[in-house]
Amino acid sequence: MKSIDLNCDMGESFGSYSIGADDAVMPHITSANIACGWHAGDPSVMERTVRMAVEHGVKSGAHPGYLDPMGFGRRFMELSCEELRNAIVYQVGALRGFCSAAGTSISHVKPHGALYNNAMVDETVARGIAEGVARIDASLPVFVLAGVKGQNMARICRENGLRVVREAFPDRAYTPEGNLAPRTMAGAVKTDPSEIADRALRMAEEHRVLDINGDLIEIEAETLCLHGDTPEAATLVRSIRCTLETSGIIVKSV
Amino acid sequence: MKSIDLNCDMGESFGSYSIGADDAVMPHITSANIACGWHAGDPSVMERTVRMAVEHGVKSGAHPGYLDPMGFGRRFMELSCEELRNAIVYQVGALRGFCSAAGTSISHVKPHGALYNNAMVDETVARGIAEGVARIDASLPVFVLAGVKGQNMARICRENGLRVVREAFPDRAYTPEGNLAPRTMAGAVKTDPSEIADRALRMAEEHRVLDINGDLIEIEAETLCLHGDTPEAATLVRSIRCTLETSGIIVKSV
Amino acid sequence: MKSIDLNCDMGESFGSYSIGADDAVMPHITSANIACGWHAGDPSVMERTVRMAVEHGVKSGAHPGYLDPMGFGRRFMELSCEELRNAIVYQVGALRGFCSAAGTSISHVKPHGALYNNAMVDETVARGIAEGVARIDASLPVFVLAGVKGQNMARICRENGLRVVREAFPDRAYTPEGNLAPRTMAGAVKTDPSEIADRALRMAEEHRVLDINGDLIEIEAETLCLHGDTPEAATLVRSIRCTLETSGIIVKSV
Amino acid sequence: MKSIDLNCDMGESFGSYSIGADDAVMPHITSANIACGWHAGDPSVMERTVRMAVEHGVKSGAHPGYLDPMGFGRRFMELSCEELRNAIVYQVGALRGFCSAAGTSISHVKPHGALYNNAMVDETVARGIAEGVARIDASLPVFVLAGVKGQNMARICRENGLRVVREAFPDRAYTPEGNLAPRTMAGAVKTDPSEIADRALRMAEEHRVLDINGDLIEIEAETLCLHGDTPEAATLVRSIRCTLETSGIIVKSV
Repeated sequence: MKSIDLNCDMGESFGSYSIGADDAVMPHITSANIACGWHAGDPSVMERTVRMAVEHGVKSGAHPGYLDPMGFGRRFMELSCEELRNAIVYQVGALRGFCSAAGTSISHVKPHGALYNNAMVDETVARGIAEGVARIDASLPVFVLAGVKGQNMARICRENGLRVVREAFPDRAYTPEGNLAPRTMAGAVKTDPSEIADRALRMAEEHRVLDINGDLIEIEAETLCLHGDTPEAATLVRSIRCTLETSGIIVKSV
Repeated sequence: MKSIDLNCDMGESFGSYSIGADDAVMPHITSANIACGWHAGDPSVMERTVRMAVEHGVKSGAHPGYLDPMGFGRRFMELSCEELRNAIVYQVGALRGFCSAAGTSISHVKPHGALYNNAMVDETVARGIAEGVARIDASLPVFVLAGVKGQNMARICRENGLRVVREAFPDRAYTPEGNLAPRTMAGAVKTDPSEIADRALRMAEEHRVLDINGDLIEIEAETLCLHGDTPEAATLVRSIRCTLETSGIIVKSV
Repeated sequence: MKSIDLNCDMGESFGSYSIGADDAVMPHITSANIACGWHAGDPSVMERTVRMAVEHGVKSGAHPGYLDPMGFGRRFMELSCEELRNAIVYQVGALRGFCSAAGTSISHVKPHGALYNNAMVDETVARGIAEGVARIDASLPVFVLAGVKGQNMARICRENGLRVVREAFPDRAYTPEGNLAPRTMAGAVKTDPSEIADRALRMAEEHRVLDINGDLIEIEAETLCLHGDTPEAATLVRSIRCTLETSGIIVKSV
Repeated sequence: MKSIDLNCDMGESFGSYSIGADDAVMPHITSANIACGWHAGDPSVMERTVRMAVEHGVKSGAHPGYLDPMGFGRRFMELSCEELRNAIVYQVGALRGFCSAAGTSISHVKPHGALYNNAMVDETVARGIAEGVARIDASLPVFVLAGVKGQNMARICRENGLRVVREAFPDRAYTPEGNLAPRTMAGAVKTDPSEIADRALRMAEEHRVLDINGDLIEIEAETLCLHGDTPEAATLVRSIRCTLETSGIIVKSV
């Protein structure tokens, strides 16, 4: 039987500011990437989000980012390897505190935004993240972009003794090389629910996806990233899960 | 044989800003209260400070404070019990991450500055701290002001299943009631090294201290707080420890 | 002819976080209290909000608060008079920069949240604010709570050479003494649009309001504070303005 | 008669953290670049620094940086042109508030750290800064690196109607092309006081400097940047000024 993990960024509200539809999306995913208070989230949001994940049997992973709430962690910051490593230990440690408090354990690490994107193309960033995770808990798997572009990061994680979980994006267009088409390209982000569900199913079942030329390319992924920030997010996530399970795919955490 | 713990606030540097004489003081204390990045400290400072503590066989405790670097955590902030509880879990969790990374474990929690002072007089603050520590790790002792003024906080910690370590200040004047004389009072802060060492010795040996009237009053404390922020700090700390050990007191962590 | 100013807090979005219905509310008010980046807002939000105010002929006032984005400026922080004074100069100066850039000038200062509330009851806070405004531009009027509770703050502003604009809240219940009923009291916050519009009209026309006992009490105010953070805010604000103008009140800035 | 401006970064202390020897250096310079609370400084430090500048007849310029106190503004952050423009308006506006309060006016803008360095090589950064200054006050000159590397930034400032003040560094080694030798190169930073003073004199008198090969190259600068962060800074600055004035150079602001 084939299986797949469904992950979604969660806990990105901050103080009086609310973002995302966490309550509605949480019941339908298997892994939550929980913001750690640097790019988004705050201690009370973290506490609430971990508790909500536990209630729904969803895994709580750390979603560390740059210390840039004004930019939501989407702006590259030039940190040294050592600074990054310590930023990871700090944020993963803080989230692990809330997991302890909720009687659960932390399940994985997925870097956020510019930190994630740059880890795929900048060796210093990749090493900083991998070393940070290895130091605080080498048993934690790291989510890495599936395909050629994530291979360097994957190698660096493995060199640091870490398990890699490859991640694909059913609502994003792929180039023939297996990379994400840039967001500026027309059609780079899919919005049709049934198309996204079909792509998710093919990723889980055949480990393949239709590229921007309409050809099937290989994409090996153990987890699919879904988006929870639109009003329709919960419906979409539920329908993807339903499509997968109806087709005999087991939806479960990695 | 009598014993006493010597604690000192550590790791309060931040980025390019340096405060304290951590390198010089660390070899002479037994418990380090390490700032957790909210009132002071940053991930790289925390990493370095935990490592330095391990090298010297010093215990690494969390020193959480208000999120107010501009005020160095010395300005009261009106947080709810829930906000405080989560602020504690966050900061203790973050420091525990660096302890994991350094192969050690976190030893205690001592609130910083306005958070410490207000915990002694405001039940909401005391409960927030105690609940936070109890949730992340109920085996962690909490440092509480020795004497009448700390009794409420001590009771609240015990109600939450926590061990209390009472703390006295050899360089501070005490009122006949056993409270710290306000800093605005002349002579409230002692600066003569031999006087401070004598007071430390009497605290450790007799559980007593000379009050502002020159009378001996009782003060039960398992740890003494020393200050590490002046240039002469290291010399002073060393001479206190020397005085204690020469007099047969065992200086060791609680 | 009688006249009244309608003010509303604006520009409280931050980075990717959106709060308030500024676009919809702005056309119907006469004075915008624009967040200055400490409790809420950021430079790009400030720029946009000042520009939007100019487009609608609305006055741009500074809405300074505590440096506590996580608490949205609603948590009291114990700052010295000097710290407050400088915090005011900083924030008013920053907003004035955007007014310069937009070819307009800053019109008034209204403290936000806990800073506003505490200014009414704590002389140090009131003095810090008044001295800050007096130093950066003594021609700027300060918005102060109408009624007994605001008299101390009003006096301190006048002693610093500042003009005071008294402010009433048509959607809040008033005690017989002319104070705002605490939010915890049932019915403290009115939600019925026509009741709020009626109260606004009576405030503008008769300088009176129905208190919690159903008696008419005096309330002298030159500006009415409306709330812009609910989905229905724009409709409510428009209907209040319509009620006022239909009854012959001139709605204009102070 | 030839003249030169001497500038120095000032006001980079923050809360309880102290950096630089502002008190000792201020009497000997003619232009202070005052941190604006983003990379360093805080409102109370800004107030004090502007007041000190006024007392010594020194010009108060804005020294805006990235919002990254942990990195002291030395880490590149990927901001859009619009974000940069607004960051400049905000920070310059805030400092201008303190200048108003002190009865003086702001004199110039010099970007700090990574913002300065990147403005010389990244057109988006240069444009963001220039547009920000032009919007808040187009009469404010901008300090730009003298030599080839600063020409692009200088052109962009002029296109925005701004006056450019070229800046040279007497304590830094120069390549034959007139660029600063990278700090990683041996001898890149001069420490010998008389060598630095000689270089400053030649820069002011002949508009030339000895490059790393020992050849004299041209360097046109109206201001010289001195460093105020070492214990010996004040002595060095005073001796440079003395050397200049003894040789008949008029030391005055631009």
